[in-house]
Amino acid sequence: MQEKKQIAILGSTGSIGTQALDVIQQHADLYEVYCLTANNRVELLAEQARRFHPAAVVIANEAHYEMLKDMLRDEPVKVYAGSDALCQIVQAGPVDMVLTAMVGFAGLPPTISAIQAGKKICLANKETLVVAGELICHLAKEYHCPILPVDSEHSAIFQSLVGEDDNEIEKILLTASGGPFRLKSEEEMQTVTKTDALRHPTWDMGAKITIDSATMMNKGFEVIEAKWLFGVSAEQIEVLVHPQSIVHSAVQFRDGSVKAQLGVPDMRMPIQYAFSFPNRLHLNSQRLDLFTKPLEFFKPDMNRFRCLALAFEALKQGGNMSCVMNAANEVVNRAFLDDRITFPQIATVIEQTMQRATFDAAPDYDVYLASDAEARRIAEELIIKNR
Amino acid sequence: MQEKKQIAILGSTGSIGTQALDVIQQHADLYEVYCLTANNRVELLAEQARRFHPAAVVIANEAHYEMLKDMLRDEPVKVYAGSDALCQIVQAGPVDMVLTAMVGFAGLPPTISAIQAGKKICLANKETLVVAGELICHLAKEYHCPILPVDSEHSAIFQSLVGEDDNEIEKILLTASGGPFRLKSEEEMQTVTKTDALRHPTWDMGAKITIDSATMMNKGFEVIEAKWLFGVSAEQIEVLVHPQSIVHSAVQFRDGSVKAQLGVPDMRMPIQYAFSFPNRLHLNSQRLDLFTKPLEFFKPDMNRFRCLALAFEALKQGGNMSCVMNAANEVVNRAFLDDRITFPQIATVIEQTMQRATFDAAPDYDVYLASDAEARRIAEELIIKNR
Repeated sequence: MQEKKQIAILGSTGSIGTQALDVIQQHADLYEVYCLTANNRVELLAEQARRFHPAAVVIANEAHYEMLKDMLRDEPVKVYAGSDALCQIVQAGPVDMVLTAMVGFAGLPPTISAIQAGKKICLANKETLVVAGELICHLAKEYHCPILPVDSEHSAIFQSLVGEDDNEIEKILLTASGGPFRLKSEEEMQTVTKTDALRHPTWDMGAKITIDSATMMNKGFEVIEAKWLFGVSAEQIEVLVHPQSIVHSAVQFRDGSVKAQLGVPDMRMPIQYAFSFPNRLHLNSQRLDLFTKPLEFFKPDMNRFRCLALAFEALKQGGNMSCVMNAANEVVNRAFLDDRITFPQIATVIEQTMQRATFDAAPDYDVYLASDAEARRIAEELIIKNR
Repeated sequence: MQEKKQIAILGSTGSIGTQALDVIQQHADLYEVYCLTANNRVELLAEQARRFHPAAVVIANEAHYEMLKDMLRDEPVKVYAGSDALCQIVQAGPVDMVLTAMVGFAGLPPTISAIQAGKKICLANKETLVVAGELICHLAKEYHCPILPVDSEHSAIFQSLVGEDDNEIEKILLTASGGPFRLKSEEEMQTVTKTDALRHPTWDMGAKITIDSATMMNKGFEVIEAKWLFGVSAEQIEVLVHPQSIVHSAVQFRDGSVKAQLGVPDMRMPIQYAFSFPNRLHLNSQRLDLFTKPLEFFKPDMNRFRCLALAFEALKQGGNMSCVMNAANEVVNRAFLDDRITFPQIATVIEQTMQRATFDAAPDYDVYLASDAEARRIAEELIIKNR
């Protein structure tokens, strides 16, 4: 009998994390939870631990340690706290795969630790490749560490590339729902609210990524991720607004043939595929019905969605620029959710931060850390000045 | 340096044959024509021979032998005639691949010969698998002979399955343009003419297959072919009318994920892929533009397109039933092109032939030959009676 694969889920209380647990539950004969982690949601983390019996749990915010420890006092589970514990737990011997489902720059250090321990990475944290794509790809090669994308778009590209090993990519067709403001005029977009932005038409996700979808910064991130995951240039990536979110993305080869992956919008599909690759397991999900609505594709409007243009710009400049962009975005995203800035100010502050931050053409890890800190400081200053 | 692959093209003067020659011309460093064959078009065959310098040419209709011989008297090419010569030439030592691009039941014997000689088959003749799918699959296995589909739909399915070796197919989504009568009412379809039927909306093909597309018998054939090529049941194949002919077909796996192949309608793409698999070569063709029109999908109307329902019925009955159906269809197709029957009579005569012909649940090659002859006779009698 095959041994069960041991999975560490970083960010188990978020949208991806909870759906990953659903997948694991559907295939309890194949997968086991080794470790669950969360940032602040102690109660849900404790509840998950009681249900899935991991060997360990980690709460990143150390302030919650005692509470979590107390909640799990009757469970045979080790309880840790802090970001160093995250980096250590992913390296534990029994761990076969690490699902990096936490949000933001914080995903970078434990992902690097997991790569260095040769663990299979199921990559759901977008910022890892946005911030430090070159470094991560370099390390993955050095440690022979497979990186399986969990994003529905990159999973679609990955699935389209299976068995095409020697066949060059001519173009990547990266689809985008267009978010809640797809049909809004530039004028209307001046006054949209947080509530408007949080109402995503097709995907039910966490708040940070939902705002990133409304600005299309999320799509910008995915452009940068695609560059690193699939070794293409910015010119080879085309974004297609596809409001139905059925074609999750596609690859065009040099014979003109295009391969695409389609499905209902259900994140459990790419999560499970990352776990089970190269095999596919049955998934108890809705099946695609192509008869309900036509599939439409539009060019994105880079004037209304300036964040997407900024991401292409960051990719072209290279070096630490997308790290700077990401840091600024994390700050303005939070500020928008806290009602400190308006929707149009999001792109403005990011752009200005990119202009002011120190550029480094060949950053190492320490430069990324410094750039991240500097960009956050600049963005914060700009927000205060703009009030 | 890699030796050039030697290709035998059966039916080089037809639509697929001439496009195959265009592909070979684009990659003259990789491919060479070993043999060209035609049924009746002597002049074009001679012209092709002068341009591509094959080792041999075969004219299937022996009446044209002297004329062809004379036309090529100054060329260093062997000239043969007759259907036995077809079967022999595909077995010639230097031949690496055989493109079976002739029309009708006549494609069966040389395809079997090529399989028995272990040649790679680039299968464009639909009737081969419709008539004798079970036999062909059995032989291909016995002689370790790869069969690469050239039909755009089956090539799309094949491309979607690359690298998915161990992953079960849950469903095949077989797309259909719907032909020229997609939007006609049942009443209007009573009076459509040959000229109407020959006006296909998206594909430029030979007359026989264009009529088969108008009745959707062509799609019925493809359902049967898909069953044999991909080892699925009739219930696992769903036909989707997709008027834009962009999604060439798709496969649904058991995780609900759907993989599809898309492209402009250009038969050179699947022809070249069959030649170059598993590699892809550059193809000087138009690239897909998804922005021009939405992609629509409709359920086919089995009442208006009775031929499609008959094909599903033949597949369910098994044995020699699809051989009978194919023979009847070849007769009525010809009769319709000769203005001997009306459009609605096509399905009626086929259905009646299927009811009257001798059923054999486990046919061998001789039974196929006898069934084919009997069904042709019955169909011909029904046509005469109906006049």
